[in-house]
Amino acid sequence: MAGSTPRIPDATVARLPLYRRALLELDEQTTANVSSERLAEMAGVNAAKVRKDLSYLGSYGTRGVGYDVEFLLFHVSRALGLTSDWPVVIVGMGNLGQALANYRGFTERGFPVAALVDVDPAKVGSEIDGRLVDHLDDLDRLVAERGIAIAIIATPAAVAQEVAERVVEAGVQSVLNFAPTVVTLPDGVPVRKVDLATELQILSFYQQRRASTSGADH
Amino acid sequence: MAGSTPRIPDATVARLPLYRRALLELDEQTTANVSSERLAEMAGVNAAKVRKDLSYLGSYGTRGVGYDVEFLLFHVSRALGLTSDWPVVIVGMGNLGQALANYRGFTERGFPVAALVDVDPAKVGSEIDGRLVDHLDDLDRLVAERGIAIAIIATPAAVAQEVAERVVEAGVQSVLNFAPTVVTLPDGVPVRKVDLATELQILSFYQQRRASTSGADH
Repeated sequence: MAGSTPRIPDATVARLPLYRRALLELDEQTTANVSSERLAEMAGVNAAKVRKDLSYLGSYGTRGVGYDVEFLLFHVSRALGLTSDWPVVIVGMGNLGQALANYRGFTERGFPVAALVDVDPAKVGSEIDGRLVDHLDDLDRLVAERGIAIAIIATPAAVAQEVAERVVEAGVQSVLNFAPTVVTLPDGVPVRKVDLATELQILSFYQQRRASTSGADH
Repeated sequence: MAGSTPRIPDATVARLPLYRRALLELDEQTTANVSSERLAEMAGVNAAKVRKDLSYLGSYGTRGVGYDVEFLLFHVSRALGLTSDWPVVIVGMGNLGQALANYRGFTERGFPVAALVDVDPAKVGSEIDGRLVDHLDDLDRLVAERGIAIAIIATPAAVAQEVAERVVEAGVQSVLNFAPTVVTLPDGVPVRKVDLATELQILSFYQQRRASTSGADH
């Protein structure tokens, strides 16, 4: 069956977590069926897109009834690989890395934090939230021994690209980049980005515009 | 001058932080001028888009010379409102809220954490990183007294919408939503989203696909 995995477009993949969240909510309310319209509204997309996206998973609603919530939830969760745990390494134990190391949400969601690494002699050997900080040089061994699948990069921007290449060499298969820079990796190594600084600057822009507009109007 | 603020498209606003980061890097290297091609490469967009985006700021490069790095950096930073501090409140002191409260990056980047709030009697009155946790009921006063501009929402998904409406009532002007759900607010209140769970699930999808594909092929 594994060979029959359909090729799902990246944009669809990016929406599956939204559908899953909506389905979890419906399931908690013991809702048995859901229309594509309702699912679309909960996920913040349009209904035609929902139907198209779910058709890639081989899921088709029944006319007048909609989708079976429990079955679709199972389908989407399985497609997302959430039936397995994916151990992560956090690289870079600065302010952000430490905050992420302390965040329990990763483990709770099936992404156990299996290793913390840095290159700073002052940090290597110390403990954060009861976990030892290892040296980046030990990454090959850590990845192999602990089955690490995903690297979370929380280094300064200047070294993020180099570190990303290093983690891929060590056998890590995908990257979540928190460093405030663009990281490019070979095809087949997915990189996702979480950029707090950029999001804050975008809000700052609107604050600034509001401030200058109200100054002119009043 | 304030009244002449041009209407910059949202998509352009979202790219300004990328240009700024590239310009900061060039400025550190004491590079005096930069072509739109080089800026595009550093920001990960195309050169025509760079020229169009910067034209909204009234910045035009000189043919054969490019843009003056220092002047453009000043222009972009000012447009982004980074010449002012924008105090933030973090709402929700669960795992994520606590991690964010401990993260020094906000203050360093001009977004000082001015208040922490929750509704849980076990948390209200306690200290996190030396800061008192206040009750959500005190939000109006906190926002007014401390000039809070931006709310960071780190509550459970189920209450995020309600909390977002509450912070807007209290006078907060924009929202950065970390809760794993869609929050909708009136026009004129910008909402940006940082969704760790979704990003991890997207990577999990690719892990899962890789695992099932290699199982079939070998």
